[in-house]
Amino acid sequence: MSQKPSIPQGTRDFGPTEVLQRKYVLSCIENAFKGAGFMPIETPSMENLSTLTGKYGNEGDQLLYKVLNSGDFFKKVVENNAQIVDANLTSKQLLPLIAEKGLRYDLTVPFARYVAMNRNTIQFPFKRYQMQPVWRADRPQKGRYREFWQCDGDIIGSDSLLNEFELLYCYDQVFQSLQIPVTIKINNRKILSALAEACGSIELLHTIAIGIDKIDKIGLEKVMEELQKEGIQDYAIEKIKAYLLLPKSIESLNAIEQICNNNASFQKGKEELEELLNYLNNRIKSSIEVDFSLARGLGYYTGTIVEVQANAGSLKMSIGGGGRYDNLTSIFGLNGVSGVGISFGLDRICDVMNELNKYPENLTAKNTKILFCYFDKAGQHKGLDCTLELRARGIASEVFPDITKKISKQLDYANALNIPYVGIIGETEIETNTIMLKALGTGNQSAYTITDLIKKLGQ
Amino acid sequence: MSQKPSIPQGTRDFGPTEVLQRKYVLSCIENAFKGAGFMPIETPSMENLSTLTGKYGNEGDQLLYKVLNSGDFFKKVVENNAQIVDANLTSKQLLPLIAEKGLRYDLTVPFARYVAMNRNTIQFPFKRYQMQPVWRADRPQKGRYREFWQCDGDIIGSDSLLNEFELLYCYDQVFQSLQIPVTIKINNRKILSALAEACGSIELLHTIAIGIDKIDKIGLEKVMEELQKEGIQDYAIEKIKAYLLLPKSIESLNAIEQICNNNASFQKGKEELEELLNYLNNRIKSSIEVDFSLARGLGYYTGTIVEVQANAGSLKMSIGGGGRYDNLTSIFGLNGVSGVGISFGLDRICDVMNELNKYPENLTAKNTKILFCYFDKAGQHKGLDCTLELRARGIASEVFPDITKKISKQLDYANALNIPYVGIIGETEIETNTIMLKALGTGNQSAYTITDLIKKLGQ
Repeated sequence: MSQKPSIPQGTRDFGPTEVLQRKYVLSCIENAFKGAGFMPIETPSMENLSTLTGKYGNEGDQLLYKVLNSGDFFKKVVENNAQIVDANLTSKQLLPLIAEKGLRYDLTVPFARYVAMNRNTIQFPFKRYQMQPVWRADRPQKGRYREFWQCDGDIIGSDSLLNEFELLYCYDQVFQSLQIPVTIKINNRKILSALAEACGSIELLHTIAIGIDKIDKIGLEKVMEELQKEGIQDYAIEKIKAYLLLPKSIESLNAIEQICNNNASFQKGKEELEELLNYLNNRIKSSIEVDFSLARGLGYYTGTIVEVQANAGSLKMSIGGGGRYDNLTSIFGLNGVSGVGISFGLDRICDVMNELNKYPENLTAKNTKILFCYFDKAGQHKGLDCTLELRARGIASEVFPDITKKISKQLDYANALNIPYVGIIGETEIETNTIMLKALGTGNQSAYTITDLIKKLGQ
Repeated sequence: MSQKPSIPQGTRDFGPTEVLQRKYVLSCIENAFKGAGFMPIETPSMENLSTLTGKYGNEGDQLLYKVLNSGDFFKKVVENNAQIVDANLTSKQLLPLIAEKGLRYDLTVPFARYVAMNRNTIQFPFKRYQMQPVWRADRPQKGRYREFWQCDGDIIGSDSLLNEFELLYCYDQVFQSLQIPVTIKINNRKILSALAEACGSIELLHTIAIGIDKIDKIGLEKVMEELQKEGIQDYAIEKIKAYLLLPKSIESLNAIEQICNNNASFQKGKEELEELLNYLNNRIKSSIEVDFSLARGLGYYTGTIVEVQANAGSLKMSIGGGGRYDNLTSIFGLNGVSGVGISFGLDRICDVMNELNKYPENLTAKNTKILFCYFDKAGQHKGLDCTLELRARGIASEVFPDITKKISKQLDYANALNIPYVGIIGETEIETNTIMLKALGTGNQSAYTITDLIKKLGQ
């Protein structure tokens, strides 16, 4: 009984070339982190739902993949809750009774959990990187997958803005080495807080931020309409409008000072932004844009907010983002530890690399330099010995496995896999202890001893 | 509201040193595969349950992690099956209604699914390797984790026994390079089939195999008792006993020929074993043991069966295993494709490496060669510039982030992380444009220009 195979929506298989391309990007990111003194950690794919739930907002809770408890998972529900098991039972009631674990939604919360659990052995400030898949039950679309990799760098246990610089420098290094032109957008949560306070109350921050965040999609006027519907007062609407119409530049700080009546949040945010720009000055090649409308991750960011966008290609989504969080580990019982982190979105970066054709040409999935071909068992055994001699010297090589296949089929295999050379072993070669080397590109062939062959291919 | 954080039972966090150790083992395995012409693929962590279920026996189905459908998963159940939703509802009835996906249980079935889906673009014989985590809801114990990595190599689309050799050669190479002494056990399913036929019927194979497989745990006599209880006839019990008492050696084939009355299965199995040993002869350093009681993976293995055990350390479980499967892809609609594969159990190998203390000494999680320390803002900025100059030349370096910390605290940080040098920048160094280099091992210090520092640390 055969079945037509498929894979879950929003997930992908990666063939040999794609795996190599992804590893290439991963190694560029890893090199940048390692060069700056970051150390790797890895956390489990599954976390307890108590660790994950409530950390990503209501929408995030919806998008978490929950893993069903093992064994006779429903029996316990019936035994302990028989009175509620009927057609009125809701998903919300049932969920905590049948699922205790979920798949990692990002790398930040597991990192905070790790830091809280290992606080006594970690040397702070702790610079860690982590490159692993995460899972979200989101609607798949261009640039959005249900399984995708994040590559995170965080520096925790220090509130120095030099750490912000270090992370933006990693962005710069990586995108320079990948040859993707990017804009790094910067904002500071404290400036947004100052705006909310100037609009009447810090309580308005989330409403205002959600509105502002939509400006690229729906435009200024629609944002204003939505904020009005949310109950923002007229004078505040005018302030927000003025704020959003300002040029995306540090020069706009003076105007924002007016809008915010120079409150304490504004002063702190201004100082932080200016200090960060001072670190960045002349040290970074990517373009930096101070964007006061940038409002991502307000759930946990408390200071700097950053986002990276590619300046070329058709992907409109960010390929990286991050920010500073002053209280992240306190949800796991570790207070007073400030951190800042960034994330690279591996899958979107690979999409951009692909579209812009930026992968190095020498990324070949098949390393094999030579395939040994033969006519009989004696030739096969001699080919095998030659193969192993080459491999022992670091030269990837193969001997064709199937003795039943004619020599022309063996050559077809080498051609199909772009193996540059074949070594043919017939009766003459066995008698003279040589290999007939044929270059598949030119068709040229001549006899080699194994010693000479090692010299030639080891070059 | 803080919570005491924890991770799911049977899963682990990996700190910097552990990640490096795991990567070291992974790179040894990957090198062996690449050198032999294997190409990498990766498959999604989640597969449709229709792909996974029924492939690993009843026990395997129990151990699969199932992922709950997203959204209001129970509403549909109620709408479509209101009549069964009551306290009599069983887990078995409910499962297919609320979970369509599961976590990968191994890499073999996803590989077969991949081959069936990509049959038109794959060049056969296809040599692939795949190194990814798998998940099993097994009872955690020494050497058994709920999330663990497999590193698989398979050659599919060829029935040549040279492929068996290639895979065993990978085992040999990897364990030689890791310096773990191992025994590679070999058997052939066809010999076990011959025994079953000689005991009355091929139908007895699984009963006999399950019994035989327990011999190391419960001993010969108890195995015989169990087989008797299973209804194996007395003459057959005598045959099995004689079979199990034979020395673990190819020399025992003559005696097995007597026990099996030289049937066709036996002849084929004998030929295959002898041909494989002929390939292995003088080409492999690890010890090879022909073990006719080896009976793993009979669910899909049809020819060669292999298992690897470490000859040192306290782990009694296998650290690798594999075999030949003639029909694996047929469950996904692709017939007539024979393959053979092996798996490395990364986590158990790392456990053995740890116990035997076989990791290279130079695996250091922190690459940083120098930490720049300073007294004020000017020193910090100069330190930052020096840091970036070193990094641009491939020398990992850092500048201490917190200007509020005294110089002694900065040195403590370098010491705690085994950073070999600090570069101290005070007023004198700024005036003379130098760096005071201090080797933390000896305490020696002297002034360097940045040019000389690059020369010294770049060595």
